[in-house]
Amino acid sequence: MNDTICALATAPGGALGIIRVSGSKAFAAVSSLCSVRCDTVAPNTIHFTRIVERDAVSPHQEAIDEVLVSVFRAPHSYTGEDSVEISCHGSRYILNKVLELLVQNGCRMALPGEFTQRAYLNGKMDLSQAEAVADLIASTNKATHQMALSQLRGHFSSELSLLREQLLKLTSLLELELDFSDHEDLEFADRTELLTLARTIDSHIAHLAHSFETGQALKQGIPVAIVGKTNVGKSTLLNHLLKDDRAIVSDIHGTTRDTIEDTIDIQGIAFRFIDTAGIRQTTDQVEKIGINRTYAAIEKARIVLWMIDAQPTSEELQEIQERCKDKSLIIIQNKIDKQSVPSAKDLSTHLSPLTPHLLSISAKYGEGIDALEQAIYQAADIPTLSDSDFIVTNARHYDALNRAHLSLTNVLNGLDQNLPGDLLAEDLRDVISILAEITGGQITPQETLNTIFSRFCVGK
Amino acid sequence: MNDTICALATAPGGALGIIRVSGSKAFAAVSSLCSVRCDTVAPNTIHFTRIVERDAVSPHQEAIDEVLVSVFRAPHSYTGEDSVEISCHGSRYILNKVLELLVQNGCRMALPGEFTQRAYLNGKMDLSQAEAVADLIASTNKATHQMALSQLRGHFSSELSLLREQLLKLTSLLELELDFSDHEDLEFADRTELLTLARTIDSHIAHLAHSFETGQALKQGIPVAIVGKTNVGKSTLLNHLLKDDRAIVSDIHGTTRDTIEDTIDIQGIAFRFIDTAGIRQTTDQVEKIGINRTYAAIEKARIVLWMIDAQPTSEELQEIQERCKDKSLIIIQNKIDKQSVPSAKDLSTHLSPLTPHLLSISAKYGEGIDALEQAIYQAADIPTLSDSDFIVTNARHYDALNRAHLSLTNVLNGLDQNLPGDLLAEDLRDVISILAEITGGQITPQETLNTIFSRFCVGK
Repeated sequence: MNDTICALATAPGGALGIIRVSGSKAFAAVSSLCSVRCDTVAPNTIHFTRIVERDAVSPHQEAIDEVLVSVFRAPHSYTGEDSVEISCHGSRYILNKVLELLVQNGCRMALPGEFTQRAYLNGKMDLSQAEAVADLIASTNKATHQMALSQLRGHFSSELSLLREQLLKLTSLLELELDFSDHEDLEFADRTELLTLARTIDSHIAHLAHSFETGQALKQGIPVAIVGKTNVGKSTLLNHLLKDDRAIVSDIHGTTRDTIEDTIDIQGIAFRFIDTAGIRQTTDQVEKIGINRTYAAIEKARIVLWMIDAQPTSEELQEIQERCKDKSLIIIQNKIDKQSVPSAKDLSTHLSPLTPHLLSISAKYGEGIDALEQAIYQAADIPTLSDSDFIVTNARHYDALNRAHLSLTNVLNGLDQNLPGDLLAEDLRDVISILAEITGGQITPQETLNTIFSRFCVGK
Repeated sequence: MNDTICALATAPGGALGIIRVSGSKAFAAVSSLCSVRCDTVAPNTIHFTRIVERDAVSPHQEAIDEVLVSVFRAPHSYTGEDSVEISCHGSRYILNKVLELLVQNGCRMALPGEFTQRAYLNGKMDLSQAEAVADLIASTNKATHQMALSQLRGHFSSELSLLREQLLKLTSLLELELDFSDHEDLEFADRTELLTLARTIDSHIAHLAHSFETGQALKQGIPVAIVGKTNVGKSTLLNHLLKDDRAIVSDIHGTTRDTIEDTIDIQGIAFRFIDTAGIRQTTDQVEKIGINRTYAAIEKARIVLWMIDAQPTSEELQEIQERCKDKSLIIIQNKIDKQSVPSAKDLSTHLSPLTPHLLSISAKYGEGIDALEQAIYQAADIPTLSDSDFIVTNARHYDALNRAHLSLTNVLNGLDQNLPGDLLAEDLRDVISILAEITGGQITPQETLNTIFSRFCVGK
């Protein structure tokens, strides 16, 4: 923490390259390379200057680049330390040279995420906000971007702080009970209130933990399996959705043997499509493996698109509805461009009333694809990502919430069993301490911090 | 020129992404996305703010990112226009979104090099300096970096302005002569002075034009051919110089059939090494083609490393010295680890006194490689890149200098032939106008500007 660190904060290869410097020697190091006196200029100002390499023995100076230097003074900087950003021409030679000169003048190269780690250690953000920075940089669509930005802006921290308040209230009520432990009649009344409060907190924690499944699906893309008989047009549909020729299309039954995955963005949410081998009776061993993978794909999917091009038998209907009983199932009647297939209306009369979606499309001519995308989006059943409905995306947070839930279950059981208050208070303190791990309110072991920040890019 | 332009100025994929905005609506466009009133804040200041997307109909705002906004006021900006730089988190989603919002608020996406083109059009730099910006960004070693930076800092412009002054003096002397054209005796004296001055200018222009060869060699890497008999260790040496296993090495004669090129940096200068097929009598047709390529490689090289591992015959010595008569030749005695080969001292007594370099190495064990690198660097005979010795690197400048030289030759011939002053003055005006093309002092056709700036990256 006492070192002054430097790093390239932009990807190499652009018109500009930004070098970040942070720490107690940041001003001195940068000032030794240019004409800007970082310690005397006004903070949050930008200065045009020339970076020069000074010769140790002669008065000769070699110009390295004409740059803009931005000066930030502690604590009003990203890291909370004295910081400088040097905006150079984006040549690798120049950027390496400037970093080299900074290292020669008392800085060291930063580790991944070290700037953000310092921001956390200097109280500029809590640990869950720091983790959101990496998620924000990695965000590729509206959903992942909103989840990360909401966390960075402290919405999760606020929820946790609300929980903490309620837990402290619960603890103080328990302590009150301990103080009046002589009055046996008081206890009963208190316990009811305690139980109600504990259940509210627990349901909130459980709700947050439960949102992790959605968070993971949004982060990795919601899995959608496209299944159906051979040659029903599954690969053609996938190509239409992906808007390119990812899957090999042919008229030969059983063309797709492997499962193919690709991600598309529908209304800001990533969907991970899994094209599968067509289901049919086959003696081809490779194809059989493919069909088994199809069943596995259904298992992993959240949404199943079942494609048909003819009237399915009632056995077939039963099988697919059985296999998809805890999935969002969309039945797609393909090849509406052909006259020979039954109309969607004919079909729907044969379907179980449970089937929520039935759509008619022509994968070949792209007809009905927009309506299908809309149906897929609705089937995902993603809660609106508003400030009030926070989604947990981080496995570390999920783990802490689960442990907090477990300890709180002990408290709830204890209340049911009329256990003494001091035993319950101990479990409550556990819950408070576990939740504090998320924001790093507790002293966080350096090992944990290293794990968290090692997944950052250098320069952030 | 009236449009307000925006672009991502950094490569995608870093911790930070910088979006540049320039033009009369830059302040309004950025202010409509955040809380910074760009037109009222002090110039050259940095502001932490939040970029939001405003809903057209409802008061709802959606946060896009927490950013730093840097404000530059015309004419004190890179382009000379009102400009803003937005430092965002480096997520593609965020950067695309911010650019989209800027376009919605009156900006358009910038063309390659358009910011620098505006800097030129607004008189912030001349055309040769603008061209240096692209070279500076592309520079990968000390030599290319120094040449580009020297040009950016206006050293070439100063040389050209000195030439222009001399040319104007020459013109005014010619006009003086015209004024006194009645006095026939005056003419002779003037012409001597004119001739001397014209010759000085011409030699300066020729010197600059001549430096283009060095400039090109430095930009593309100085070509070095490694030649010699089969199995003498050429590929082993190349691998040692490249510090990896680029060439296939084996003990079989004739392993290298194709010419292999790779670039290494010696003391800040790029050398492009060409390994060649060993020269020997062969019936293998493919190998014969390789040997012909070897001769072609010698032809193209500036430096030839001739490797030997035994006493060459006087015929061999004669051939190589003949083929390399206008090259820097370094004879390398390889395999000094083996006793059977003649010592360097024995060898040198048989060499023509013209041979400037003779070195003994062991390519296998890396002995003598440092001395060889030093010898290669010296053989390149690169002039010290000081401010006073400018090297032309740009083909457009080279072309202009050659045309200027041609027109000036007409003037010199005219002076010799005692042609009338008004004819000479016309050629002189040509020279002045051609040189002005380089810095863009003349009105430069838009087509020429488009060609120049199209090789820039977007965002610069």
